[in-house]
Amino acid sequence: MTDAPLFRKMALIGIGHIGSSLARAARLYGLVDEITACARSAATRDAALSLGLAEAVFEDPAAAVDGADLVVICAPLGAYRDLAARFGPALAPGTIVSDVGSAKLCTIRDVGPHLPEGVHLVPAHPVAGTEHSGPESGFAELFDGRWCILTPTPEVPEAAVEKIADLWRGCRMKVECMDASHHDHVLAITSHVPHAIAYTIVGTAFGLVDETRSEVFKFSAGGFRDFTRIAGSNPVMWRDIFLNNREPVLEMLGRFSEDLAALQRAIRWGEGDYLEDLFTRTREIRRGVVEARQAGSFIPMEAATSAAGEDEKD
Amino acid sequence: MTDAPLFRKMALIGIGHIGSSLARAARLYGLVDEITACARSAATRDAALSLGLAEAVFEDPAAAVDGADLVVICAPLGAYRDLAARFGPALAPGTIVSDVGSAKLCTIRDVGPHLPEGVHLVPAHPVAGTEHSGPESGFAELFDGRWCILTPTPEVPEAAVEKIADLWRGCRMKVECMDASHHDHVLAITSHVPHAIAYTIVGTAFGLVDETRSEVFKFSAGGFRDFTRIAGSNPVMWRDIFLNNREPVLEMLGRFSEDLAALQRAIRWGEGDYLEDLFTRTREIRRGVVEARQAGSFIPMEAATSAAGEDEKD
Repeated sequence: MTDAPLFRKMALIGIGHIGSSLARAARLYGLVDEITACARSAATRDAALSLGLAEAVFEDPAAAVDGADLVVICAPLGAYRDLAARFGPALAPGTIVSDVGSAKLCTIRDVGPHLPEGVHLVPAHPVAGTEHSGPESGFAELFDGRWCILTPTPEVPEAAVEKIADLWRGCRMKVECMDASHHDHVLAITSHVPHAIAYTIVGTAFGLVDETRSEVFKFSAGGFRDFTRIAGSNPVMWRDIFLNNREPVLEMLGRFSEDLAALQRAIRWGEGDYLEDLFTRTREIRRGVVEARQAGSFIPMEAATSAAGEDEKD
Repeated sequence: MTDAPLFRKMALIGIGHIGSSLARAARLYGLVDEITACARSAATRDAALSLGLAEAVFEDPAAAVDGADLVVICAPLGAYRDLAARFGPALAPGTIVSDVGSAKLCTIRDVGPHLPEGVHLVPAHPVAGTEHSGPESGFAELFDGRWCILTPTPEVPEAAVEKIADLWRGCRMKVECMDASHHDHVLAITSHVPHAIAYTIVGTAFGLVDETRSEVFKFSAGGFRDFTRIAGSNPVMWRDIFLNNREPVLEMLGRFSEDLAALQRAIRWGEGDYLEDLFTRTREIRRGVVEARQAGSFIPMEAATSAAGEDEKD
């Protein structure tokens, strides 16, 4: 870590679970001198002030970014374009604009055009979160040991990218840069499609006749409960993710649907070998994930096959 | 609890994670006098003995059930028919036969015909488990506060059903009786379809090009990791569940596929209201599940809408 703060004044545009966690981490680790926050609702602004997350709060994003050398958008993806249009003209040259959204091509598409000459956009995705929401729910340790993905375009100065990397490293994250389109494809399969599936199956269960439905909740320990946790995520945030990462999500959902149809067919025709082969393969993948987590970084499949067995009985 | 043990001699046919947990709980809570275990592999038999899970171990199921007044099958569903054919003729009248399998019509179909006159079949499904396997992984507290579903046919004497209910209540479970076919439909949606989906998406991810694939593991914290945990379950056990609960699983997978197609369509056409409505509904369902768990029993949706928000940011 540097001795001096990385930034003089950080403006958070939106201050929910992630924005509030960033504010706390930035204070705890001395990454910024001063924090302002912008929120639409008065209740959120009051909470941000009384929790000591920001020195000043604003309803107007242009007022929040006044004098800031760092602006971080922590709002649903669908609000980016309007927010950037409003705060963009108020930015001073040299300011770095970043965000925490789960899709990145759309960040470049919606924010980029509203930034004046000399302002640098470094989109970021801290892959972290809990099942809580709102400014009260944040905590500085949320980011500890998790990955943050940066997706700057090639023309962004290396120094600006490094400052955002330092910000998230300062929050105890591991940082990696990649192309925004590649990010969107990887996250489509690791996060967006799992959410689409979880939302769907919980909706399917809700469509069952009443008697069966109440038993579905009662006996949800058999796997369904994990899906309800994912399907309890913020509706507006996820609506915006699907609408703004449409093509990669549809592409991955298409692959998934084909594979599910093949599984259905194997079940219908009693193809036990097909099922056992698939399930054995996925178990090895699970071991890879467990090993990767334990080791703190990815370990190739071949090295992971001797890992201890994990299974679940229901 | 009764002062005297419920059963004189319990024979466990198979002694993996669940069988071993049952043995430990039965000892801890004084539910049986004596335990025998049957396992195909010598290593499992040795482990059962050295862990003190059974007084005697056998390779031959007929030898294991000799003198037992309770037999509990703790093996994959696909092995039931052969096991019952082998131990059935050795059973004394009055013996109760039960199991711990995840599908129940097939238990009646495969075990029932092999039981002599005066032997009572009380199929059971303790809905509990962890991500570990084998006799070493069991623990007495596994069943604490979870549900056990019994699916006896109408002709089974009430006294036999009550003894199995007492066995699982003695293991600290909540017990409920239902029709085997109804059980199979409820578990299809709460457990079997979630596993089918998790197996499929982990397989889909494995089919991606190498570079993307390794990043899928690296950034699996965004939802995918939950699916890998489920997809790490025992391959043979799950092959047998799908093959033996075929119709309910295919019916529920059919409903799920239709609903997923509708979601895909809404994403493709940018129908934000459809997405937000669905996600808001599933979030309320999640609150119902959380409330049900906290209260220890199911609470209707209407009573749960004031629960604290839960969401997950990725």
